Amino acid sequence: MSEFPILERIQTAVDLHSMSLTELEQAADEIRKVLCGLLSIRTAHFASNLGVVELCLALHSVYDFRKDRLIWDTGHQIYPHKLITGRFHQFNTIRTRGGLMGFPNPAESEYDLFMTGHAGCSVSTAVGLKSGDDLSGRPERRSVAVIGDGAFPSGIVFEALNNAGELKSKMLIVLNDNRMSICPRVGAMARYMDRLRSNPFYTGFKQEVVKMLAHVPVLGDPAERMLAQIKEGIKAGLHGGMLFEELGIRYVGPIDGHNIGLMRKYLKMLDNEPGPVLLHVVTEKGHGYQPAAKDPVFFHAPPAFEDQEGEAKVKSGGSAPAFTNFARDAIGGAMRRDKTVTVMTAAMCQGNKLEPVRDEFPDRFFDVGICESHAVAFAAGQAKVGLKPIVAIYSTFLQRSYDQIFQEVSLQNLPVVMMLDRAGLAGADGPTHHGVFDVGYMRVFPNIVSMAPADGPELTAMLDFALQQDYPTAIRYPKANAKDFGYSKQPIELGKGQIIRWGTDGAIVALGPLVEMAVAAAEQLAEQGLQIAVINPRFIKPLDFELFERVFRECKFVLTVEEGALQGGFGSALLEAACDHGWEIGRMKRVGIPDRFIEHGERDELLHDLGISAPKLVQACQELSGSAAVVG
Amino acid sequence: MSEFPILERIQTAVDLHSMSLTELEQAADEIRKVLCGLLSIRTAHFASNLGVVELCLALHSVYDFRKDRLIWDTGHQIYPHKLITGRFHQFNTIRTRGGLMGFPNPAESEYDLFMTGHAGCSVSTAVGLKSGDDLSGRPERRSVAVIGDGAFPSGIVFEALNNAGELKSKMLIVLNDNRMSICPRVGAMARYMDRLRSNPFYTGFKQEVVKMLAHVPVLGDPAERMLAQIKEGIKAGLHGGMLFEELGIRYVGPIDGHNIGLMRKYLKMLDNEPGPVLLHVVTEKGHGYQPAAKDPVFFHAPPAFEDQEGEAKVKSGGSAPAFTNFARDAIGGAMRRDKTVTVMTAAMCQGNKLEPVRDEFPDRFFDVGICESHAVAFAAGQAKVGLKPIVAIYSTFLQRSYDQIFQEVSLQNLPVVMMLDRAGLAGADGPTHHGVFDVGYMRVFPNIVSMAPADGPELTAMLDFALQQDYPTAIRYPKANAKDFGYSKQPIELGKGQIIRWGTDGAIVALGPLVEMAVAAAEQLAEQGLQIAVINPRFIKPLDFELFERVFRECKFVLTVEEGALQGGFGSALLEAACDHGWEIGRMKRVGIPDRFIEHGERDELLHDLGISAPKLVQACQELSGSAAVVG
Repeated sequence: MSEFPILERIQTAVDLHSMSLTELEQAADEIRKVLCGLLSIRTAHFASNLGVVELCLALHSVYDFRKDRLIWDTGHQIYPHKLITGRFHQFNTIRTRGGLMGFPNPAESEYDLFMTGHAGCSVSTAVGLKSGDDLSGRPERRSVAVIGDGAFPSGIVFEALNNAGELKSKMLIVLNDNRMSICPRVGAMARYMDRLRSNPFYTGFKQEVVKMLAHVPVLGDPAERMLAQIKEGIKAGLHGGMLFEELGIRYVGPIDGHNIGLMRKYLKMLDNEPGPVLLHVVTEKGHGYQPAAKDPVFFHAPPAFEDQEGEAKVKSGGSAPAFTNFARDAIGGAMRRDKTVTVMTAAMCQGNKLEPVRDEFPDRFFDVGICESHAVAFAAGQAKVGLKPIVAIYSTFLQRSYDQIFQEVSLQNLPVVMMLDRAGLAGADGPTHHGVFDVGYMRVFPNIVSMAPADGPELTAMLDFALQQDYPTAIRYPKANAKDFGYSKQPIELGKGQIIRWGTDGAIVALGPLVEMAVAAAEQLAEQGLQIAVINPRFIKPLDFELFERVFRECKFVLTVEEGALQGGFGSALLEAACDHGWEIGRMKRVGIPDRFIEHGERDELLHDLGISAPKLVQACQELSGSAAVVG
Repeated sequence: MSEFPILERIQTAVDLHSMSLTELEQAADEIRKVLCGLLSIRTAHFASNLGVVELCLALHSVYDFRKDRLIWDTGHQIYPHKLITGRFHQFNTIRTRGGLMGFPNPAESEYDLFMTGHAGCSVSTAVGLKSGDDLSGRPERRSVAVIGDGAFPSGIVFEALNNAGELKSKMLIVLNDNRMSICPRVGAMARYMDRLRSNPFYTGFKQEVVKMLAHVPVLGDPAERMLAQIKEGIKAGLHGGMLFEELGIRYVGPIDGHNIGLMRKYLKMLDNEPGPVLLHVVTEKGHGYQPAAKDPVFFHAPPAFEDQEGEAKVKSGGSAPAFTNFARDAIGGAMRRDKTVTVMTAAMCQGNKLEPVRDEFPDRFFDVGICESHAVAFAAGQAKVGLKPIVAIYSTFLQRSYDQIFQEVSLQNLPVVMMLDRAGLAGADGPTHHGVFDVGYMRVFPNIVSMAPADGPELTAMLDFALQQDYPTAIRYPKANAKDFGYSKQPIELGKGQIIRWGTDGAIVALGPLVEMAVAAAEQLAEQGLQIAVINPRFIKPLDFELFERVFRECKFVLTVEEGALQGGFGSALLEAACDHGWEIGRMKRVGIPDRFIEHGERDELLHDLGISAPKLVQACQELSGSAAVVG
């Protein structure tokens, strides 16, 4: 007999409608078994998925999401949903190249509407979906957004609630409250949710009091108007969720998010509500697997592990330190030396490995929650009064503060240091997380100096350089291991690049850590008699015009290679310089991320396929060299 | 005797500290007189400035903003502040080139900390300023943000409140509630403020009830716990501002924002509060000038007018219709023809002249307030279910939804039409409003097709084209008059540009309405015997490779001209194409906005100085032609 009799039986999620509560609970057990099995073979989002198993089953057993609309915010808690929407048999391919994506993917299933990986937009899109269905004469279609308490304080959620309250859209917002972002979550809203959870009246008791109050008479004179006011006050206080009610969103809860029967009851009951409803569901991140429930931070997306009698043993050994580690150590070092250095994270303390920094400098460490816009403007405020704030945000998430980079940082020319981790392909997370647009989006703004380190110590040197300047700076580095090639021995100087090796048969200008593969390619080409220069530009902006003038003058071709979008990227910056200075660019070629979204997969593998690897660079140089020989 | 005896006397804002209430009220009268005088000579932000006169005086008479920190959100209500901070004598230069800026400007005065023009960031920066002062050992410095009720629902405000509540920062947020954005403001938060204003208990009466409640005993058994809960409920209901109190922000108000004495009393009282306080101040937009108070939408930034016995008579005559008008009419026309077309604005109904569209199609017109992030994600939701949403947002404000353009639109490849008004130099508003970065920031994302119309009817044709596609599109057009050159007779075809005139001595590729000046230049050059081609690319992305291949092959030089940043701009896109296709670019030159912020001033004048005018193009062509002659 199958290990997964229920999951095997589910052809489509609608099959859940006819299941008994016992069967649904058994499905929950099977889903947990699959999740634990997956984690024994590879790293994946784990604790959050364990937390939403029952919620997912309850939703699908009440709604029909082929017609109704479901958005999972920050879609990494999509695994149970995938398992019951026709993807059980492919599930072990998740997060591998060509396999299922670790986030919702409309290309995989009609049950996935939006590919989501950035937090907070689910309420907006759900309002839009409902509005669209209503206008299209399909008002019976229901709209549901599931959003975690970590994502909830994102500004756009508030914008969406404000609009939903105004439009009086009939829709359901499920606030999945597991008291966690990736790290324990922060902010006044978090404390508010804690208070909501402690409300002793949510069991139904309050209903009676409200009924009783209905009998208190209300007339016209001032004393009685006061009585009416008191009455409203009592109702409000009993009700809980005033913050939402004030915005016209009906608040219900909190209820147990691991009780399928209870959730089904509430979902059905709320279906008759005419306007927007927020259902507050309390879940436990890591629920059902004891080690994960005990340490949900580690188990957010743990490395592959083996379960040994209830203890999770990590399988893989250590690897070289990542750029993230160098960044962490550089930040810590700077904070030790200089009391004016502060650091901001937007709920990515773990991803940026900043826990030791947080613990050592609690007063100068600011986790503002998933609020990148605020993080950048807040940093600008600190910079204005003389501090040296470092904003550590992934390249792709920094897009969320784009207008603050413009107005609060670039326009004011304030010395905020932006550290863009995951600048490049983010691997198994895929297109929502690849950080490939920052070179282009950042360099359009005046005043910002942008850098890319080629190795670990160079990152440290660049941060030290950045902290000495009185203008904004950005440092981009990928999700990759960082080595020490000794490049940092040459001090960082504004707008100065570095010649790694010289040769006039051609030049490879390699951004950031791609210098390593450029050197490997050049060495191989040297064996074939081609002397290829390798340039580490260090600065994306300003460019080292003097150096590149020499490169264009002396080298037979110029090949740029970058882990970023070619549109408006580093190669384009060099083209602009060539055009402005009248350098000959007939033999220039740019290699980088083409104008399409890149799938998920191993970073090295994806890069190679895009022409970004030592063998591909060798090949490109051979081709350019051939044509150069013909031309030259 | 001077017409402005008090204003003449104020050397620095601190002089207000020693003034009597009568003198402060006289100062208010004088400020209003100056404002009305200004509006008789030029267009400027008017009604909002009339509304904050007393608030501004009250703040400066209590605080010392040389040490304390003051941020005016969406800084167009900065005029009274400028008048009492040493800029009274230059005031008539405001919004003219080389004169005072119509927004806060740190270069003008130590009293202006941030140049603000985009809404909502004041609370974040004020939290940052306070945090920075505290960490720097200057905890006595106070931090104040003044934010209007229109800006208040911006997501970042919520992010900042969430953080301020957590940090327990001692700071003052003044919510300046005039019941208006530029247009009457919208959203659930607006209705909440209306309820706050109608609270009959804010006069002090509630204090007694709260005192009385303190005597109700609270013990341990369930019934008494319930009593305690009711007590809290009563307090909450009486208190008002629960929404803020829930987040740890003390709410006080609403109070009359035209009563200087009352405000001074509150400001002094609140100075002892240890944490964040929100002071709700009710003002009247246009206060003190009857026509403006009656029609604050028109008087937000009216054209120059003359006061005739209490009636405002607009001075200037009509002018040619602007691109904005063509956009409005095109949107209206599309909505008339196609019931699936909807339109979103972020509180810019007036700026985009969409009032007739709003009135004709109230069900398909969505003003979401100053919430650009939500506007775009909301539109994506509608697009997903088959509608054809048009998002009409100024180029510079669209930066606020950058991450939604990425995730909700580009990544999902949804047919949202983005109409970028004010794409180019915004004239007297200056750098916070110039829309010069969109070409670069938009084209880094895959899937989005970008266009720029050369004349009014071409805008209409492009919108019609966009609405027929199943992918995202963007149309950029400047704050300028639009003519009809007949360009739209040639149908819009994906990625196809247009030859306006042909010649092989050189080519000018002019983006959008700059085609007109390119034609003028070419005509002048023809008289000198140079046959210059003029190309209307129509599409920024994708480019017309076939056309440009011919241009590069046959024309002796290529000059691109665009009203946008040169970094990553249209010229760069053409350079990329040239590099990829191996076209000769030795004789290419790019003209556009250089890598710095452009001051305020008349658009034509500013453009000319940047080399963007017919005479400057003639000169550039002559130079290129000269060098071409030498080379060729």
